[in-house]
Amino acid sequence: MDLSIRKFTFPLPGLKERKRRAQRAAMPPETLMFLGEKKLESSRVTVFTYNQEECTERVIESADDLMSALPENLMIWLNIDGIHDTELIEKTGAVFGLHTLLLEDILDTDLRPKTEVYEDKLFLTAKMLSLEEESGKVIAEQVSFVLGKNFLITFQEGLLGDVFERVRERLSKGKGKLRRTKPDYLLYELFDSIIDNYFIIIEKTGDGLELVEQKILASPGKSALKEIHAFKSELMELRKLVWPLREIISRLERDEDNFFEEHNRIYIRDIYDHIFQAIETVEMYRDMLSNLQDLYHSSLSNRMNEIMKVLTIITTIFIPLSFISGVYGMNFRHMPELEWTLGYPAVLFVMSAIGIFMLYIFHRKKWL
Amino acid sequence: MDLSIRKFTFPLPGLKERKRRAQRAAMPPETLMFLGEKKLESSRVTVFTYNQEECTERVIESADDLMSALPENLMIWLNIDGIHDTELIEKTGAVFGLHTLLLEDILDTDLRPKTEVYEDKLFLTAKMLSLEEESGKVIAEQVSFVLGKNFLITFQEGLLGDVFERVRERLSKGKGKLRRTKPDYLLYELFDSIIDNYFIIIEKTGDGLELVEQKILASPGKSALKEIHAFKSELMELRKLVWPLREIISRLERDEDNFFEEHNRIYIRDIYDHIFQAIETVEMYRDMLSNLQDLYHSSLSNRMNEIMKVLTIITTIFIPLSFISGVYGMNFRHMPELEWTLGYPAVLFVMSAIGIFMLYIFHRKKWL
Amino acid sequence: MDLSIRKFTFPLPGLKERKRRAQRAAMPPETLMFLGEKKLESSRVTVFTYNQEECTERVIESADDLMSALPENLMIWLNIDGIHDTELIEKTGAVFGLHTLLLEDILDTDLRPKTEVYEDKLFLTAKMLSLEEESGKVIAEQVSFVLGKNFLITFQEGLLGDVFERVRERLSKGKGKLRRTKPDYLLYELFDSIIDNYFIIIEKTGDGLELVEQKILASPGKSALKEIHAFKSELMELRKLVWPLREIISRLERDEDNFFEEHNRIYIRDIYDHIFQAIETVEMYRDMLSNLQDLYHSSLSNRMNEIMKVLTIITTIFIPLSFISGVYGMNFRHMPELEWTLGYPAVLFVMSAIGIFMLYIFHRKKWL
Amino acid sequence: MDLSIRKFTFPLPGLKERKRRAQRAAMPPETLMFLGEKKLESSRVTVFTYNQEECTERVIESADDLMSALPENLMIWLNIDGIHDTELIEKTGAVFGLHTLLLEDILDTDLRPKTEVYEDKLFLTAKMLSLEEESGKVIAEQVSFVLGKNFLITFQEGLLGDVFERVRERLSKGKGKLRRTKPDYLLYELFDSIIDNYFIIIEKTGDGLELVEQKILASPGKSALKEIHAFKSELMELRKLVWPLREIISRLERDEDNFFEEHNRIYIRDIYDHIFQAIETVEMYRDMLSNLQDLYHSSLSNRMNEIMKVLTIITTIFIPLSFISGVYGMNFRHMPELEWTLGYPAVLFVMSAIGIFMLYIFHRKKWL
Amino acid sequence: MDLSIRKFTFPLPGLKERKRRAQRAAMPPETLMFLGEKKLESSRVTVFTYNQEECTERVIESADDLMSALPENLMIWLNIDGIHDTELIEKTGAVFGLHTLLLEDILDTDLRPKTEVYEDKLFLTAKMLSLEEESGKVIAEQVSFVLGKNFLITFQEGLLGDVFERVRERLSKGKGKLRRTKPDYLLYELFDSIIDNYFIIIEKTGDGLELVEQKILASPGKSALKEIHAFKSELMELRKLVWPLREIISRLERDEDNFFEEHNRIYIRDIYDHIFQAIETVEMYRDMLSNLQDLYHSSLSNRMNEIMKVLTIITTIFIPLSFISGVYGMNFRHMPELEWTLGYPAVLFVMSAIGIFMLYIFHRKKWL
Repeated sequence: MDLSIRKFTFPLPGLKERKRRAQRAAMPPETLMFLGEKKLESSRVTVFTYNQEECTERVIESADDLMSALPENLMIWLNIDGIHDTELIEKTGAVFGLHTLLLEDILDTDLRPKTEVYEDKLFLTAKMLSLEEESGKVIAEQVSFVLGKNFLITFQEGLLGDVFERVRERLSKGKGKLRRTKPDYLLYELFDSIIDNYFIIIEKTGDGLELVEQKILASPGKSALKEIHAFKSELMELRKLVWPLREIISRLERDEDNFFEEHNRIYIRDIYDHIFQAIETVEMYRDMLSNLQDLYHSSLSNRMNEIMKVLTIITTIFIPLSFISGVYGMNFRHMPELEWTLGYPAVLFVMSAIGIFMLYIFHRKKWL
Repeated sequence: MDLSIRKFTFPLPGLKERKRRAQRAAMPPETLMFLGEKKLESSRVTVFTYNQEECTERVIESADDLMSALPENLMIWLNIDGIHDTELIEKTGAVFGLHTLLLEDILDTDLRPKTEVYEDKLFLTAKMLSLEEESGKVIAEQVSFVLGKNFLITFQEGLLGDVFERVRERLSKGKGKLRRTKPDYLLYELFDSIIDNYFIIIEKTGDGLELVEQKILASPGKSALKEIHAFKSELMELRKLVWPLREIISRLERDEDNFFEEHNRIYIRDIYDHIFQAIETVEMYRDMLSNLQDLYHSSLSNRMNEIMKVLTIITTIFIPLSFISGVYGMNFRHMPELEWTLGYPAVLFVMSAIGIFMLYIFHRKKWL
Repeated sequence: MDLSIRKFTFPLPGLKERKRRAQRAAMPPETLMFLGEKKLESSRVTVFTYNQEECTERVIESADDLMSALPENLMIWLNIDGIHDTELIEKTGAVFGLHTLLLEDILDTDLRPKTEVYEDKLFLTAKMLSLEEESGKVIAEQVSFVLGKNFLITFQEGLLGDVFERVRERLSKGKGKLRRTKPDYLLYELFDSIIDNYFIIIEKTGDGLELVEQKILASPGKSALKEIHAFKSELMELRKLVWPLREIISRLERDEDNFFEEHNRIYIRDIYDHIFQAIETVEMYRDMLSNLQDLYHSSLSNRMNEIMKVLTIITTIFIPLSFISGVYGMNFRHMPELEWTLGYPAVLFVMSAIGIFMLYIFHRKKWL
Repeated sequence: MDLSIRKFTFPLPGLKERKRRAQRAAMPPETLMFLGEKKLESSRVTVFTYNQEECTERVIESADDLMSALPENLMIWLNIDGIHDTELIEKTGAVFGLHTLLLEDILDTDLRPKTEVYEDKLFLTAKMLSLEEESGKVIAEQVSFVLGKNFLITFQEGLLGDVFERVRERLSKGKGKLRRTKPDYLLYELFDSIIDNYFIIIEKTGDGLELVEQKILASPGKSALKEIHAFKSELMELRKLVWPLREIISRLERDEDNFFEEHNRIYIRDIYDHIFQAIETVEMYRDMLSNLQDLYHSSLSNRMNEIMKVLTIITTIFIPLSFISGVYGMNFRHMPELEWTLGYPAVLFVMSAIGIFMLYIFHRKKWL
Repeated sequence: MDLSIRKFTFPLPGLKERKRRAQRAAMPPETLMFLGEKKLESSRVTVFTYNQEECTERVIESADDLMSALPENLMIWLNIDGIHDTELIEKTGAVFGLHTLLLEDILDTDLRPKTEVYEDKLFLTAKMLSLEEESGKVIAEQVSFVLGKNFLITFQEGLLGDVFERVRERLSKGKGKLRRTKPDYLLYELFDSIIDNYFIIIEKTGDGLELVEQKILASPGKSALKEIHAFKSELMELRKLVWPLREIISRLERDEDNFFEEHNRIYIRDIYDHIFQAIETVEMYRDMLSNLQDLYHSSLSNRMNEIMKVLTIITTIFIPLSFISGVYGMNFRHMPELEWTLGYPAVLFVMSAIGIFMLYIFHRKKWL
């Protein structure tokens, strides 16, 4: 049942990954190098070309076909899966005129969510979260967006395509504003679907917290302690993912370089509200966790107090009585009490009296 | 008596509600969907049309009658109860030209209090709190306001009409500034009555805190611990409701889009003061609670100390004495002391001496 | 002696007062209602009319005489004691053209210190503190100032006139800059005398803290704990009174509406410094208190440690010895040691050896 | 050895001094009154008049000679020791045209470090710290600076002249930039020498902290606790002195009134860096202290745990054994075991078995 | 194995170094004095002169040759090892026209990382970290940069040349942008290689933290406590080095004096991201450490609870039983039970019953 609480885990960037980064330090700048874990066998490039009337989806075999596949007068959405293929990234960069630093950022999968403007392109990167149903593990994957005048490129490594699937479908079917507007609105819908997925993870955390609370209120044990510690690490991770998003959106909202059309700015505000809600929920969970920890400690202290009381009551009642029995167990030849006919009942009576008096004292001190 | 302290509870958004939100993630944007709990059987639309001379109240049967019911030259207050009826909301949106995102916000009852400007409309949403007298439960309900040039629309789900009742009455009777001014002043009065109701809840909390303090000062037990934990969650909830109001009012005060008439701005400042007072009181309660928690822990430690002292005194006095009696309880054949005529009284004397000496030591160490 | 430490108490706004506020929620805005405790039997209005040459003091019987009592070409200081008389306040408001919200603020004695500009009047309210010598209770009373072109009105309920007494005297005697300048300088002197009185309370608190520190260093007991808790509440109250003053003075210093003459602005800066000093002292006391609390807890832990050591030493020395004596107290028929001539001294020797060895161990572990 | 750690102490403003401040509250504003402790018998006024060619030092007997002693075309540094002589201060104020509030600030030796502009004079006050070698006490004294076009006045009470001595010497000998520039550079050198002296105190604190750390790591006792508490108060004092300096220098750096010549501004930046380093070190010490406190508490808990383990092991091993020996010490007539030939060795064997089993259990639980 | 965790240590500025600083206080300003530890026997000056076509590296024997070695039309990188040679620094300062305060900053190796503009030169100083492989000690060394129109000077004391080695090599080989651009890009590459080296240290810390966590989860002992304390100090040091870098880069990014060419500004942003990542990781480690500390304390409390339970169970079971056996060990002549044939088994039965009852109680209280 313990396992059912933490159905997911964010692994801290482990030793292997960190080694990669230190390795990076040994390379000159301006060398493209994939800093992540290769998940796909081969990379896959998909191009959507669309306007209000039509929409075509094509899979491109080789990076060299890229140039010829891009029509001038249509909107383009280029989706690249498998960023471990640095050559592909480099060629894509050449076709669209992307700065080397931008390409480096795409390849560094340990990057903090951020947005950057490179000349006339808007670069935006964030972590996409999804929940692997069977194992309950959270899969975090970095997605990068490059928004130009009439194109949007999305880069990712894995196969978490389902998060974007819905948008892809609606684009094909021509529903909503998607086909009527420039790729800035497409960016909004893709980004919004990423944020929406955050809530699924956040809610799982919330469910777990409630279970931990019930557990602690029932009995504060060692397993509750480990739960709390694990939740702390998880919330720390979630927080690290969610906070920078706010900054990103603030920058987009100002939009000093006019990447977004006037009438689409209100949608950025909408994402901002969602992100703010996510941040607030995460912060609330942190507060709750801290309260739970206080509760845990207080319960533990309380319990210790109870134990000590029992120990003290038993000890302070019986030790004096044992002493008395010890006295009359001594083998002195001359102990007059031992000869008395009523010596034994008298001693028993005295002992009972002492015991009852002690109980009365404890009762008055409210220890009982 | 425990129950009398926490007369109210804010249920954390439970599993069911959170599921709804995750469900929302699965829907395309721009689809209207009610994210809340349906409380009313059927929705109810009331229209007040008024100016300085006259004031009419009408209940509108169907959303289609809405258009015809709105005169051009009068002020309009449209009150909609039962926002679960998405069709009604959609039609109202069409009549008044409300943006889809605005309508989505109205339907999302888990929204953070906020204000937003959509073209020439001011959107404002907040939680209305009221206390169900019998059960002592706090009922929180979301109210949304849309303020236009000469109309104000209020949206809510439940039947907490009494909070607005007084304003409604004064509007009908033509008292005060209400009828003489545009709907911006009406918005002020409605919002002010919401804030005034916050104080009732806040004061109940204050009363409870005082009782908990008395309880802890009397004796720190497990129930006090649970009280503290419960109050913490409640204050966290209250805080989450109250803090964003400040930001809202700050935005209204700047009023960059001139929704408020010059001479009415001073009333916004007035609400600001009330909100600030509410925030300050909530923060003060948080401090008090944290002090109470410190007090609880210190009292517990103190008590433990007391218990340990008793245990130690009893044990350290009697264990050496018992040892002596044990020695003379041994069955060695050759124990000269046992043969002495005054052996027994001598041992008793030694024991008393040791006991008194111990007591003296404890007295000097101030343990007694 | 305990009592001598906390010579004063700020009562938290009790149940009765809070009820009044909730009651207020039930009234329409723009209705004047006194939210405080009536302290004076009847209200008292005093008018000072002065310029460089002359200064007259008059007591006005009825609010209706107010109009006629105000000369055009002199400076006016109107002092109103007894603000429970709402009719008087209303009439004064009418004579000087004061906004309804301003009058409401005057009547709400639970108001946070603040300043506000209503058209051409400056409104300022703060708590006046004074120490009732015999009982050692702090009396907090709200004073409101309304500064106009050539008049200053002060509102208060009680009879704490002595704080203003000195200014009154100097005004009559024509000392200092008071008579040469406009009422803005009079406001400065009155406000300054309020701030000066804060220091008396703050210093009393400081004296008390030192006593508590000595107490804890001597022996950390339950009374020290209650002292600390009480001081915390008091400092929380003091802080709530003092912090807003800073904000007020900042606003006065900017003085966007030119209520203060150029050459008098430096006096506002002077008050600012005093307030800052008061705030800093209060904050320092809070830090001290928190240090004291740490000290208290550490001392308690230390003491517990001491107690446990004593208990453990006694127990671990005597329990094995008692065991040995118990063994030789057994009644087995065949126990060869019992028959030995030197059995008894041998056992005593072994016991002593064990005891000494134990003591040596404790000595090495630095428990002794 | 304990004493060697805290070689210095900042006495909190004691009862006597605080009484003076409350006394101040009873005086009208604009009355000069010395709020400090008189340290010098009589005051001493020294005038340096200098330019690039010459430099004269003169001691002025009476305040009346001041006027005549000030040449027009030379730079002037007027140093006043013994500010308890309010008459002298008043006359100096008259000669240089200093505002009454400025003079009040000079006389209030409990003032927070601050800077203020009074018309064409720059007022600056700070605490000068020096270490009395023999007693190890820190002496804090307030120094005030008034900088005018071609003069600098320094006010202080005591005789801590050595801090300024070096500057005085270099001024006389005509070294460095001192004689070539206006008094603003002189102010820089004097202020810099004050800051440099702070580091001596700060470093003493650092040395002490290291000793305390070693002490705690060796064994956490009651004296370490008192050290920590004392250091906390000291750092609180140091912090209170150092933090405001930052604000002062920020104001000087902006220098809106052009008190500093263009090419001298870089020196202000230099002081800023020193102050920042001082602040940072003090903050680091606070962090270290807080870590030490954590370490202290953890060590204490650890120790308690050790003690409890010993107690529990001894108790749980011997109590059952004692019970067995008690059983066979009973005097029942019919106890078959007592008659057995091997009864005694059998019991001894059982006891040993139980003891060894217990030890094995403790070993497995890692208590040994 | 303990040692393997903290493979490195940042020594706190020890007594010796701090003495130097206090000594500095005794010197007049504008005197050059080396405030660090001399590490090199003699200083070493290397000059790189380069442009797109050529690149020459020369070692300069004496400071006097400096002037003649600097061509006008080439870019210059002057690297000075061994800043303890104040004369060399002074001469270099004279050749390049560096301000005295700038030279002082170079010589003060305890300086906080900072940047400063002196007329047309940009001064920047930071700590370079490298890991001595064998000893695992972190070596921190101060590096100062002075950037002029067409020259860059780097100052350091030690021989940590390998950090710069790679850049040196690429400059010689003419790779990348290095030779095509002005020295501002060279500064970027050198600074970037410093930052990259920070990550090696940070990652080592991360590895250590994971080991400590495992240790605590296994068993919370005294060594874990010391680890935590040591890590705290280390993170405090790391933080002190890393935080100011952010401020530096912010200032460079604004670059009000145009030290960087337009197209190179994006590289500053790149460093900013790296620094931000370093800061964030350090802060995350601090949070983790604080969580570990909580975990440590909670585990300790838990353990104490366990110990107490065992003690209490054993004691409360056997003490009453021992008492009973004590009673029947008394030597009264008249104790009827002793004569009963079944007295002994009856007593044994009663004892067993009591013991079983106790166990049942503990079981119900969930102590077993």
